[in-house]
Amino acid sequence: MKHILATDIGGTTCKMGVFTPELELLHKWEIQTDTSDEGGRILGNIHQSFQSEGYSPEDTIGVGLGVPGPVDFNNGILNGAINLNWMHRKPIAAEFEALSGMSTMVDNDANVAALGEQFKGAGMGHKDVVMVTLGTGVGGGVVSNSLLIHGHGGAAGEIGHLLVDYDQRFQCNCGKKGCLETVASATGMKNLAMFYHHEHKGTRLDMAIENGTVSAKMIVEAAQEGDALGLRVIDEVAQYIAIALSHISAVTNPKYFIIGGGVSRAGRILTERIEAHYRPITFPPAYENTEIVMAELGNDAGIYGAARLVKQYLT
Amino acid sequence: MKHILATDIGGTTCKMGVFTPELELLHKWEIQTDTSDEGGRILGNIHQSFQSEGYSPEDTIGVGLGVPGPVDFNNGILNGAINLNWMHRKPIAAEFEALSGMSTMVDNDANVAALGEQFKGAGMGHKDVVMVTLGTGVGGGVVSNSLLIHGHGGAAGEIGHLLVDYDQRFQCNCGKKGCLETVASATGMKNLAMFYHHEHKGTRLDMAIENGTVSAKMIVEAAQEGDALGLRVIDEVAQYIAIALSHISAVTNPKYFIIGGGVSRAGRILTERIEAHYRPITFPPAYENTEIVMAELGNDAGIYGAARLVKQYLT
Repeated sequence: MKHILATDIGGTTCKMGVFTPELELLHKWEIQTDTSDEGGRILGNIHQSFQSEGYSPEDTIGVGLGVPGPVDFNNGILNGAINLNWMHRKPIAAEFEALSGMSTMVDNDANVAALGEQFKGAGMGHKDVVMVTLGTGVGGGVVSNSLLIHGHGGAAGEIGHLLVDYDQRFQCNCGKKGCLETVASATGMKNLAMFYHHEHKGTRLDMAIENGTVSAKMIVEAAQEGDALGLRVIDEVAQYIAIALSHISAVTNPKYFIIGGGVSRAGRILTERIEAHYRPITFPPAYENTEIVMAELGNDAGIYGAARLVKQYLT
Repeated sequence: MKHILATDIGGTTCKMGVFTPELELLHKWEIQTDTSDEGGRILGNIHQSFQSEGYSPEDTIGVGLGVPGPVDFNNGILNGAINLNWMHRKPIAAEFEALSGMSTMVDNDANVAALGEQFKGAGMGHKDVVMVTLGTGVGGGVVSNSLLIHGHGGAAGEIGHLLVDYDQRFQCNCGKKGCLETVASATGMKNLAMFYHHEHKGTRLDMAIENGTVSAKMIVEAAQEGDALGLRVIDEVAQYIAIALSHISAVTNPKYFIIGGGVSRAGRILTERIEAHYRPITFPPAYENTEIVMAELGNDAGIYGAARLVKQYLT
């Protein structure tokens, strides 16, 4: 039997997976990501790891790679990935094919995670799904007709840069203000906590802000304990996410919004508030039967999605 | 040679077209839409017209129908079309197949127009295109990976109901306020003109508003003649359209926004202002190389798109 190989390349580890042609996961492991020498060893180490597990071009259908940066999908070219010390455009697909002799598909890590969740995780059985990853930043992946949408320049699914804070209070890394990322990422939670803490003097959260030790995790925990500032931040985060989901619903009308990433660990205290804000501002036919759910595959989403790309485009 | 047949069913006329298997238009004509008897003659008249032109099931690949109402695309079911006196759910594809003996694809008229413009009109050669139709209402069609996006409930492309007027000044037919349709359709232009005319007393436009004869056409003409109220309305319409395009860009990143419908006859006075408002509020990678262009196929867009559906799904 031939196999599909998949790797989700992260700044710390590379998740490795081996799948059947029907996309059953046979075997998974991790290797360290060696970002020294401008990341020059990363692809070689991945290839070597597959080789040492016994996989050769003859028994491989193809390799799917998820990478933490913007990708020109049609040409398999990564436009730099700071976390990997890859500072320039890099033709990943061509390089890995030359190294391994295996056909290779490459896509952005948020995209492969979305595709993984769509076909095997929280979106299973549905062709139209959007994943929202709330982490240090806000990422996204849009799957429609069971295919990832890349758009003509690869910027589809950049929902972290939807304009949702109409007051445009906080500066975004992209150079603009008002982006979802400025109010719904871990950084965004801190932005909001700092914006409001003067109205909540003397609380533990206020003190953490004053002495510069506040974290998104602390804000979530404070909210779960009933702290007024924590709850105010969580509610506003939820409100801005709801505005973004409302816009997305009118454009691609997904069955599921799948929420992942570190901030999503806030859990129901967050999703219940997103739900409550989302429906009143959304065109009814566009939210009917749409559900907001938690991601299910965790760290495996990327390898599932990368393997799925191989299945979709190389078989 | 077998043919592909296509009809764009409107409230007044049905546009009829015959295409080669390669989607060259061989012949087109119109018939009146007879909406009497609850629209019970419409499908029969279309079938008869194709028959009298000599087309039979044996030499037909399939039929594509565009209809003015929401469609369950996978099942070919229309959920009512007021303009046709079809007040209930109607299994159009099954009915037309039973009548004609020809395989039939059905989609919403805004969707087939978008698909027509994408493959043969202003979007030719590009897989990712969004059409915005500014008429009595605001409609849309989203094409990604060369496929129409329907979404799980068929509400994808409902961009007339994107929330763009943050002040939520005007009531929309959908029951909400602030929708693009309330500020960018023909009705929306009148809403804005009425909202501001007190600040522009004594002008011709103000008088037309006072005596209830104002129309979108008058507002456009006034703007083109340099009237301050007319220009203010056009600029604000453009600003709201730009907000919508900005949102769509971050979700599906199209190469072209194709502007059609009656309001688009305003021409460059409108599109130049949309451009000017669009880029400053949009994530740069999501607008790079994106162009805002006018529709090119006019009334033929629907039959081209309906024929394309047959080619995509029945061959």
